[in-house]
Amino acid sequence: MYRKEIKVMDCTVRDGGLMNKWQFSDEFVRGVYQACTDAGIDYMEIGYLTSEHVFSRDEVGPWKFCANADLARIVDGIPSNVKLSAMADIGRIDLDDIPPAGDSLLDMIRVACYIHQVDKAIFLAEHCMDKGYEVTINVMAVSKVNEHDLDQGLSDLALSRVPTIYLVDSFGSMYCESIEHLMKKYQAALKGKTIGIHAHNNMQLAMSNTITAIINGANMLDATLLGMGRGAGNCPVEILVAFLKNPKYRLLPLLKVIQEQVLPWQKKVDWGYHIPYLVTGAMNEHPRDAMQWMDSPQKNDYVAFIKKMHDDEILE
Amino acid sequence: MYRKEIKVMDCTVRDGGLMNKWQFSDEFVRGVYQACTDAGIDYMEIGYLTSEHVFSRDEVGPWKFCANADLARIVDGIPSNVKLSAMADIGRIDLDDIPPAGDSLLDMIRVACYIHQVDKAIFLAEHCMDKGYEVTINVMAVSKVNEHDLDQGLSDLALSRVPTIYLVDSFGSMYCESIEHLMKKYQAALKGKTIGIHAHNNMQLAMSNTITAIINGANMLDATLLGMGRGAGNCPVEILVAFLKNPKYRLLPLLKVIQEQVLPWQKKVDWGYHIPYLVTGAMNEHPRDAMQWMDSPQKNDYVAFIKKMHDDEILE
Repeated sequence: MYRKEIKVMDCTVRDGGLMNKWQFSDEFVRGVYQACTDAGIDYMEIGYLTSEHVFSRDEVGPWKFCANADLARIVDGIPSNVKLSAMADIGRIDLDDIPPAGDSLLDMIRVACYIHQVDKAIFLAEHCMDKGYEVTINVMAVSKVNEHDLDQGLSDLALSRVPTIYLVDSFGSMYCESIEHLMKKYQAALKGKTIGIHAHNNMQLAMSNTITAIINGANMLDATLLGMGRGAGNCPVEILVAFLKNPKYRLLPLLKVIQEQVLPWQKKVDWGYHIPYLVTGAMNEHPRDAMQWMDSPQKNDYVAFIKKMHDDEILE
Repeated sequence: MYRKEIKVMDCTVRDGGLMNKWQFSDEFVRGVYQACTDAGIDYMEIGYLTSEHVFSRDEVGPWKFCANADLARIVDGIPSNVKLSAMADIGRIDLDDIPPAGDSLLDMIRVACYIHQVDKAIFLAEHCMDKGYEVTINVMAVSKVNEHDLDQGLSDLALSRVPTIYLVDSFGSMYCESIEHLMKKYQAALKGKTIGIHAHNNMQLAMSNTITAIINGANMLDATLLGMGRGAGNCPVEILVAFLKNPKYRLLPLLKVIQEQVLPWQKKVDWGYHIPYLVTGAMNEHPRDAMQWMDSPQKNDYVAFIKKMHDDEILE
């Protein structure tokens, strides 16, 4: 399975932050950064790049913004080859708030978009390229996109200068055959570009979908420590590294930061495989209803959750 | 994915019992039996078939023996089409202790064996067939078997009267390509026989390995409620049923028994994905060291566990 082109991106702070409003301590984020450094992880996505007027710092932690001063506190004193990335949502970052890459500690900006936003995503991503950043475009929720729209979006992306496009299973509803089908489609439509994979674990298929994507040519692999991420979470980076057996990665530093920093969060935040996330995944729906349910006192009443989802006939 | 030949076997009590010495209450076992009945599950493996002199009932619960009187307490008053199965380990059941099928509430006996025990397994399985039971042979730990020995064992099995042979990933170390390779080997060697799949979740691949086995022709599918089983546990039956979308199965009864009966056990017993199980899975080793570690006060010291495993150079 060794392929030197493979790059692993740890998204623990960015995707995990969706579960705690990015309220990580500096100690946590520095711990992840040190671990990625020691483990040879290629990229660390440290949060969202957001204009300060869009959210209040009273409500969300610093990693919703990724201001350079915040980033500096993390990297200070840790010599590292890890490249830092931030995710940009369409409409939440003013172009003037993106500094030239030379003035930023960020190396990469990843633009997340839905299929109808592809043109806006290309515009934003190419703007970031012109400012000196590496960029990707991550087309979300493709399991709900009809293939005609997807083909159109992919052909627009093919014509762009953006070098890396992600296949994103936002709802955790895909399995090996759907991943293989889409990877072949992406590969055919996006010749010469790198394909990335970002999987969610609603049906406990995030790790295997990442493997299937690798087999079908994906070279940018998203993963998080202990799978920490929205809802059912992501492909666990420690399994991915153990699986890859790639000489550039080391497992031990990842296990160290999991036991020191990530396990305590697991007692406070219910990411990972839980039945409500299975239900939304199996229904190919956004996990938001399941996340609300998991935040409620009746979180373990799965029968009531299915009934609330008004889909008894399908899922009973 | 609909294929009418597919049969699902719930192994919660048998494989989950490896985590609590089969100390389930009758209420628990009846709950699982009722849920399997309501959900349309084809088989329920309710424990091991063991001679009473091999273990003491002071140490292990009734589901280590599956005496007919114990079985009767479970099925009493629950009309059901679920077939009951018990697993027999080579050397732990005297032939005289196996009643004729007509005198037993068991429908099936599954013989578990290692590759060097295939001849003994065939002898025992054919003995059970002659007594009127359905039988399978489950060849364990094949991820450690060299292919010459495996080919020899499969050719012996091919000549037997045993109709169903299981591919068992005892250590949870396989992934889609290894499953596909072995499924093709089993299919070629065992023409006319049914192939089953029994997966473990050390690398979060039990569900996907079951899917890959289905795609490659497996028609007997083992799974457990919430994945409850030895170490990292098994393919979760609720995910499998949600995935199959087979009209004969219903999800809701499975979710009901999970919330009522299985969740409480999850607070007491550490099955499922935990780092020590990942380590043994990635090393293709038996989970026993990881299970001991998870029973110790330092269960969350993963760095110490890897060092104990004396394999730092490979896994660091």
